[in-house]
Amino acid sequence: MKSEGVKEDMNTKTVRISIIGLGNVGRGVAEVIRRKQEEITRKYGINLKIVGVADLPGAVVDENGLSEDAIRKFKSGETTEDMTTLDMIKDVEHEIVVETTPTNVENGEPGLTHIITALESDRHVVTSNKGPLALQYGKLMNLAASRGKELKFEASVGGAMPIISLVKDNLAGNGIISIKGILNGTCNYILTRMREEKLPYEHVLKEAQERGIAETDPSNDVAGRDTAVKLVILANSIFDRHVSYKDVEVAGITEITLEALKLADDAGYVIKLIGEVDGGGSSGECLKVAPRLVPKDDPLNVGGTLNVATIKTDLAGDITVIGKGAGPIEAASAVLSDIIGIYM
Amino acid sequence: MKSEGVKEDMNTKTVRISIIGLGNVGRGVAEVIRRKQEEITRKYGINLKIVGVADLPGAVVDENGLSEDAIRKFKSGETTEDMTTLDMIKDVEHEIVVETTPTNVENGEPGLTHIITALESDRHVVTSNKGPLALQYGKLMNLAASRGKELKFEASVGGAMPIISLVKDNLAGNGIISIKGILNGTCNYILTRMREEKLPYEHVLKEAQERGIAETDPSNDVAGRDTAVKLVILANSIFDRHVSYKDVEVAGITEITLEALKLADDAGYVIKLIGEVDGGGSSGECLKVAPRLVPKDDPLNVGGTLNVATIKTDLAGDITVIGKGAGPIEAASAVLSDIIGIYM
Repeated sequence: MKSEGVKEDMNTKTVRISIIGLGNVGRGVAEVIRRKQEEITRKYGINLKIVGVADLPGAVVDENGLSEDAIRKFKSGETTEDMTTLDMIKDVEHEIVVETTPTNVENGEPGLTHIITALESDRHVVTSNKGPLALQYGKLMNLAASRGKELKFEASVGGAMPIISLVKDNLAGNGIISIKGILNGTCNYILTRMREEKLPYEHVLKEAQERGIAETDPSNDVAGRDTAVKLVILANSIFDRHVSYKDVEVAGITEITLEALKLADDAGYVIKLIGEVDGGGSSGECLKVAPRLVPKDDPLNVGGTLNVATIKTDLAGDITVIGKGAGPIEAASAVLSDIIGIYM
Repeated sequence: MKSEGVKEDMNTKTVRISIIGLGNVGRGVAEVIRRKQEEITRKYGINLKIVGVADLPGAVVDENGLSEDAIRKFKSGETTEDMTTLDMIKDVEHEIVVETTPTNVENGEPGLTHIITALESDRHVVTSNKGPLALQYGKLMNLAASRGKELKFEASVGGAMPIISLVKDNLAGNGIISIKGILNGTCNYILTRMREEKLPYEHVLKEAQERGIAETDPSNDVAGRDTAVKLVILANSIFDRHVSYKDVEVAGITEITLEALKLADDAGYVIKLIGEVDGGGSSGECLKVAPRLVPKDDPLNVGGTLNVATIKTDLAGDITVIGKGAGPIEAASAVLSDIIGIYM
């Protein structure tokens, strides 16, 4: 697996990784690690090696590193599993488990068990999976701390758009007053197209489904539930609150009409599905997803599938960040930054 | 100086700081450290103590920490200096020199000598001063590396808006293709007001001067030189280029007319003073400041005195960050994040 041109010397550390979940994000992580391997070794002195991947049937492993072809063959069913996913997590020697199975906000599974098992096996965890974080944030962070391991999850909120690390690192020293933003690209696409093309909700939703922007069952997105889960993660990780999904006040975009968009437009506003969270306390607690009027010249007015968040701070004032909220390579970018962050 | 309520235990590390330059930024840093001291000790386990401050007459020092009152009295001339600035840097024991003297792009002084002396005295340096970085970036970084010390400068570009640390940390693993943005709040204010109020350049400039947004001699800002210096810092620090101020192609905003703004507006654009830099190489090298057309719905279209930068990456796509580019507390916020970053 050692590529030509990679400088392997005493200063290079091999970091062995498993990827659990070979959906878009998991395959994106494998692709990005393959594409960036030499550059990462050169710049950060770490040699990333994928020693196992797991999907529904179980796991395939290779301590020398799995090739692109081996991962593809396993995903397509041409090769069968070597062991169960949990056995891979526990028994195959490696440093980082990347957990990218689909979000389940009922009970967090199977991601929750994967993450707990990984931490109990003394492995770092990097995840894009919102379910376990929304349901068991405190328990998981305590487990990670007790094992001296990191649990990182930048990809779970805003895709490629940095927000959790932005607040924790770049705004260190600032008190964070609130975070407010568009955290669901599907809803943003629908509202943007409705406004620009004067087309009704059902029409634009159908178009979004045809273009792969909305899922066949779009309800998690359009009812605001996806945004709500992300808000819970921000509330717990940035504001040290102890909330779960049921604590969020949620309204979606299904009732937004062309007339409402037109009225807003005439008054200098757009309508966006906004999630807002603050630190709670005496001035009232905010943990809310709802369609809201946004002034056209406000930084939160971004179009298409973009995500955006405005972070209100006590020193730096308002900081806004805009980026692609979805896409396999974009999410993999956030996973990769988290991986590198563990060793920087 | 120990405040009530600060948990001083074995895990708390005292970090002694000197501040050189008691202009807006330097005083902002002193103010922010005072205001945030207990919170920083609690969250990061470091106790920040200002053991010296220096301004034109020289330096005052107190190994037990200078009070707010002592700093004020020295600044107002009620007390005199204890020693020269260079003696303070060399002889007073401390960990971090915060250099905030005014930018000088002719020869970088006096900041350049302060920074070199600090690094040679084995102190970390955090600076908001663009001159030394624009003129001697490579030499200064090599000196810092040879001493095993950090030289950090988030406040030098974009004020409170994170950009250097954003690229280096949050987008780690990404290849950075280009950075494009509004890096001067004074120019943005002038162009925004001209467009919105249909007032000519000279009128708005005068208003900006009255409001303290433009300086009495506004030429560094309006001629694009301030933006150019910031681009040089981005070129050297993020793109590993070896350029200096004279390599930048610069045009300012003094020739922008109401007619030009109106024509742009009719076509769906605004005019902004845009700085753009890329990694150079075969596809041509960009290092340019010029008024440019920006589509109204582009994330770069921000108004007032805001700064903005769009970072084009190979994995995460375009990431845009918006924030306050100026202001003493905002710049101090960036200095403080750099200080904390040294110990995280």
